[in-house]
Amino acid sequence: MIGLTCFSCAKHYPATELINLCECGKPLRVDYDLPALDRSKLTGLDMWRYRDVLPASTHKTLGEGGTPLIRSDRNGVEFYVKDEAVNPTGSFKARGMALAVAMAVKLGATKLAVPSAGNAGGALAAYAALHGVEAHIFMPRDVPEANRMECELLGAHVTLIDGLLHDCAKALGERKEHEGWFDLSTLKEPYRVEGKKTMGYELAEQFDWNLPDVVIYPTGGGTGLIGMGKAFDEMERMGWIGAKRPRMVSVQAAGCAPIATAFSQGRSDSDLYPNASTIASGLRVARAIGDFIMLDLIRKTGGTAVTVTDEALMKATYGLAASTGISVCPEGGACYAAFQDLVAAGQIKEGERVVIFNTGTGLKYREAFTRYPA
Amino acid sequence: MIGLTCFSCAKHYPATELINLCECGKPLRVDYDLPALDRSKLTGLDMWRYRDVLPASTHKTLGEGGTPLIRSDRNGVEFYVKDEAVNPTGSFKARGMALAVAMAVKLGATKLAVPSAGNAGGALAAYAALHGVEAHIFMPRDVPEANRMECELLGAHVTLIDGLLHDCAKALGERKEHEGWFDLSTLKEPYRVEGKKTMGYELAEQFDWNLPDVVIYPTGGGTGLIGMGKAFDEMERMGWIGAKRPRMVSVQAAGCAPIATAFSQGRSDSDLYPNASTIASGLRVARAIGDFIMLDLIRKTGGTAVTVTDEALMKATYGLAASTGISVCPEGGACYAAFQDLVAAGQIKEGERVVIFNTGTGLKYREAFTRYPA
Repeated sequence: MIGLTCFSCAKHYPATELINLCECGKPLRVDYDLPALDRSKLTGLDMWRYRDVLPASTHKTLGEGGTPLIRSDRNGVEFYVKDEAVNPTGSFKARGMALAVAMAVKLGATKLAVPSAGNAGGALAAYAALHGVEAHIFMPRDVPEANRMECELLGAHVTLIDGLLHDCAKALGERKEHEGWFDLSTLKEPYRVEGKKTMGYELAEQFDWNLPDVVIYPTGGGTGLIGMGKAFDEMERMGWIGAKRPRMVSVQAAGCAPIATAFSQGRSDSDLYPNASTIASGLRVARAIGDFIMLDLIRKTGGTAVTVTDEALMKATYGLAASTGISVCPEGGACYAAFQDLVAAGQIKEGERVVIFNTGTGLKYREAFTRYPA
Repeated sequence: MIGLTCFSCAKHYPATELINLCECGKPLRVDYDLPALDRSKLTGLDMWRYRDVLPASTHKTLGEGGTPLIRSDRNGVEFYVKDEAVNPTGSFKARGMALAVAMAVKLGATKLAVPSAGNAGGALAAYAALHGVEAHIFMPRDVPEANRMECELLGAHVTLIDGLLHDCAKALGERKEHEGWFDLSTLKEPYRVEGKKTMGYELAEQFDWNLPDVVIYPTGGGTGLIGMGKAFDEMERMGWIGAKRPRMVSVQAAGCAPIATAFSQGRSDSDLYPNASTIASGLRVARAIGDFIMLDLIRKTGGTAVTVTDEALMKATYGLAASTGISVCPEGGACYAAFQDLVAAGQIKEGERVVIFNTGTGLKYREAFTRYPA
């Protein structure tokens, strides 16, 4: 690791102290002097298999990463599901928090805070417990109960806020300086992306270093897409893969679609989405600070940004679960719905290798399943 | 695999057709002509790493097994948690069902049925979906809602019964012949144990083929204990480990303790536990058909069978979660409570290597956490 660079203005920072955003207000990227690593020498069952391209030397782990790629098909069109439900705390958020908490603690933080519409809170609570530091979590009052209970089980301090995720962020922001909290919000520190990028490394390895044609990913804050894009670039620089990239497809809910809207308007950044609402709580992100990075990535790879309705995504959640055995969450269902739409529209062709991300376990979504019964 | 042998009367059966119990009414064991396998040649990240000592050649998988061993300590006494929460459907039941469903389907079954007090139902639902066969699940009406919803998400047919697990088994038994269901109840077919035994193989490998001193395991139906005991014996025959065994500790709830009661009375089998009741739904098993196998294993290894109260196990659930970051379930909490009791009683000494099993994710236990808040 040689330092940090702003994703937007390219200003450099050393990676030796706690830092949130660039002076210009945009996210920071971790840079490496990438060694000529031998990809055949990787060891371990979890995401620390890629430790040589990760910033933390510390290795406290709950076994995050190393998730399965499950092959299935729909009406003869094959697809793969990357099942992130089998992570600690049941979601992909474990990868980012494992690394972000390790780095924050290494750099001196003892009180960590995050706003969360769902899974990020539980993941922070878990890794704060693992490292023996405090976790302070701000959640919308209508967050799924399982997310709140998980934080409490893991010993975190939970504050419920009337509003959406950005309202939680605001409430956190007003208190953090006085309380001495380090803010681990999505892309407001450089290291969650580094954990998330291991999804990209795993995909490459699971496809025998020959990336798939299409990756369909549910988009809230966007660190997953951004992390995978970064992983692909790093692997190319190390000679692990070639220049080919999957078409990156961002999936949002019809009721909260800032990225899909900006994409369709040809814009390079997004606006706060008005009256944001969807049953898929992880997609209730009305504005993402990394919007410009995502929009660039989607366009560069020839991908697209689409929306699905709550009805369609819940129907697809049941459909994907019952046909594969995977504990699908509504965000994963949204990707399966989008996959079917893209096949129907001829944008995905038979024979293409398509990956759908199931970002977490359906177990936490009691309210959604109650409102949309099987 | 060379055939099946009754755990009790030693009668032999071929392993070529669907079978439940021995004619004498007791469970059947799978026997192998164990080859001189090289333990350094194991490959893969999940339980199919041990495929050479498993009966199924089919390899449909959701990524079950390969769970982490997490090191922690309490007041200076070190212990390890084997975290089964990160399995598909969030519990250790995935291991047994992955194999039992594969074998049942291979041998011609198309409709599978099981009574379940919790996690077994979800696991059957998942693997039935993976293999494209029907799942019929009989659950107590007071089963945690998350367990029922998970079965429905995965496309299973759920029947709720007024009563306990053995009442569910009875209701299933009355219908199975007419409906053509194959009964996958705990130890009423030979292959769930074969999946569970992979926990023993993983433990040995994670401790570098030098077994720990004590294994503390929550006991409902008992396939976990029985499977691990079988794994240790198989590994010794292959020369992978020596003759040393961990002291096997069975943990039950004070309100449902058939094994602990039989153990303390010096008996070799158990009675139906009257008015069985506990908040830890996985321990609500008033009588286990494999009681005699467990009691023999516990005594042979110098282990013990203990009970903890619901108050103590819920307190320990929160304590273990908040000190490790693991999504602990009440059954895992019961083991942690028992660990503390055994240390206090001098039955576990400093420096011994102790493994506590967290058999599933706490995420499914909303009712328990509501009744016993943090």
